[in-house]
Amino acid sequence: MSLSLPASEFRNRVARAQTRMAGLDLGALLVTSEADLRYFSGFLTRFWESPSRPWFLIVPASGDPVAVIPAIGEALMQRTWVRDIRCWPAPRPSDDGISMLADTLSELAPGGRIGMPMGPGTQLRMPLADYFTLRSVLGGMSIVPDQGLVQDLRAVKSPAEIALIRQACAIGGRAFDRVPQIAAAGVGLDRVFRDFQRLCLEEGADWVPYLAGASDQGGYADVISPATSAPLRAGDVLMLDTGLVHEGYFCDFDRNYSVGQPSQEVRDAHARLIDATAAGFSAARAGAKACDLHAAMSAVPGARTAPGRLGHGLGMQLTEGFSILPDDISEMQVGMVLTLEPCIAMTDGRIMVHEENIVIGSDGPDWLSPPAGPDIPILEGIL
Amino acid sequence: MSLSLPASEFRNRVARAQTRMAGLDLGALLVTSEADLRYFSGFLTRFWESPSRPWFLIVPASGDPVAVIPAIGEALMQRTWVRDIRCWPAPRPSDDGISMLADTLSELAPGGRIGMPMGPGTQLRMPLADYFTLRSVLGGMSIVPDQGLVQDLRAVKSPAEIALIRQACAIGGRAFDRVPQIAAAGVGLDRVFRDFQRLCLEEGADWVPYLAGASDQGGYADVISPATSAPLRAGDVLMLDTGLVHEGYFCDFDRNYSVGQPSQEVRDAHARLIDATAAGFSAARAGAKACDLHAAMSAVPGARTAPGRLGHGLGMQLTEGFSILPDDISEMQVGMVLTLEPCIAMTDGRIMVHEENIVIGSDGPDWLSPPAGPDIPILEGIL
Repeated sequence: MSLSLPASEFRNRVARAQTRMAGLDLGALLVTSEADLRYFSGFLTRFWESPSRPWFLIVPASGDPVAVIPAIGEALMQRTWVRDIRCWPAPRPSDDGISMLADTLSELAPGGRIGMPMGPGTQLRMPLADYFTLRSVLGGMSIVPDQGLVQDLRAVKSPAEIALIRQACAIGGRAFDRVPQIAAAGVGLDRVFRDFQRLCLEEGADWVPYLAGASDQGGYADVISPATSAPLRAGDVLMLDTGLVHEGYFCDFDRNYSVGQPSQEVRDAHARLIDATAAGFSAARAGAKACDLHAAMSAVPGARTAPGRLGHGLGMQLTEGFSILPDDISEMQVGMVLTLEPCIAMTDGRIMVHEENIVIGSDGPDWLSPPAGPDIPILEGIL
Repeated sequence: MSLSLPASEFRNRVARAQTRMAGLDLGALLVTSEADLRYFSGFLTRFWESPSRPWFLIVPASGDPVAVIPAIGEALMQRTWVRDIRCWPAPRPSDDGISMLADTLSELAPGGRIGMPMGPGTQLRMPLADYFTLRSVLGGMSIVPDQGLVQDLRAVKSPAEIALIRQACAIGGRAFDRVPQIAAAGVGLDRVFRDFQRLCLEEGADWVPYLAGASDQGGYADVISPATSAPLRAGDVLMLDTGLVHEGYFCDFDRNYSVGQPSQEVRDAHARLIDATAAGFSAARAGAKACDLHAAMSAVPGARTAPGRLGHGLGMQLTEGFSILPDDISEMQVGMVLTLEPCIAMTDGRIMVHEENIVIGSDGPDWLSPPAGPDIPILEGIL
């Protein structure tokens, strides 16, 4: 992978943030999470997997961002567009960057209000006790909610971001096309999971942060379980749902396969899922609300959609931003990337779920994942 | 993968927690992060990759844990030993489990002190605004730091946990042995990264949450960067550092390879890294302190160890618990699993890092990763 986005991309993000910050009377914006920090800096590393060290980025009311980070990240941060990089030797439990962070905030926004993401879908990526310490040493400054500022900015993707997500989706599509090479009756689901991740890598994924799925008779009980070693059986519906990463951007879509010939119920359910996805796609126009997409998908005859959201925002995280729910009034805007994820309740309490990725364009929606057809693919082979 | 730990393992963890909770006068323990929640429940899913929903587990002062979780996780939680599972239809931004969580805490620990992990290495895995809401509705209860309780429990592994980490290390060892099949002068580092993850999966990894590394002339600048497409060159030192997962437990070790014949400086540095690792191993006995291991590794003649920690705890997370630092006085206990990770400063500001995984036994330390020899392996092939 390369750090492929130009500095202009990040300058534009910062400018958009600063415009909104002015409206909220924020002297600075402080972000701590992987995606938020990368959004403004381009800092891309898998090292976030280690929880030992906090990382901080400050967007001031004017001027360029300032990074306050562990020394282990200095060389990599220097390869981004960020020029003001302040480091401490972390881990240092007695003061893991807090005094340096407080000093930097005092310098950049004396007496000001510091906005932080703290609403739905966000997490504070630093020890809570350190947050309280920071608050206590900030003097005249206060920490306030960012009112969804960062989430709103991230929700609308640039053409460069959309291109990266499209590439991630293409990689996933090629991997799904090869599932008949790795899955058939008798193969353990855990082996299918391992081999599918291998296919994603072979097709160009940088890594595969997410894979869930299931295989059971005529549908499955849930969609978030890890694999067991139980072999696939004739009559199973195999579902694989992957979030793979290409240059820091996710796809998130799934495919269902019938192990051997499907029952009529499974055939029909798959076709209705595709109908519901198409209905969601048609409704996904700038100005529509997330709840409108939910209504469109739920209205498909015979779709019997199950409770729960039928899609969500997507980008630097597997799931981000709004939910396609009956009461989510988020408005679709040109550049938003989302999943359409209808779920059908089968007899016996099982479910089937289908998922595609789309982008809202100025002339209507566009598919990012290669959309599946109504006929559920059949795995007939013996491997 | 299977949910392979018996209920007795989790009962024992809860009993140990409750003993310490009594000493801290805690009416309940509340955990929100993946590893902490899994530690007490066995709830294993990659769905944490989605930040849209918070998850809660409560360990009361006596009795079994109670899960307060999104409905999407109910079926999987029912497969664990946890019997009291309370669900809400998440995401629900207006009340994402907070009222249900507050009611449950009031029921389990009326008027009591609720301990939460909030020290070094921990994160609050819920929106910060929801945490403030929770605090405001708790009535007579208060949220207090858990004083490192959960971290301390997790640091000492059971025999079953050690066996799982040993298996993870063996998988990593077999993948490292196959690096000559995928890496040689002329191959892009990004391709090496993809292929190495494939090898990890082929050798039995459930997934590969972490891979970092570098390849550069006579050493490398940092150890957390993602791969670029730059091809390996003769004279490079290639380092690959992986954290792969086996049934929810990590290994975390690296290997260095010379692309073509190494310089004398690289040969010597590699041998000194192995010396330093051996010195750390010898010092890693029950009763020793983390700083003693640091001193032993730093004292190796010619090791010129760079600043920063020279190892850390390991288990359900890539890094957890103590750091091998000059001022870390954490005491080694039988059952602790850790990495030894000496770093040598080369000329021109480059570094080389070596890493192995060990366990503290009652008769002394034991290798979990297959320890590397002093001679740096050489990649001569043309692929």
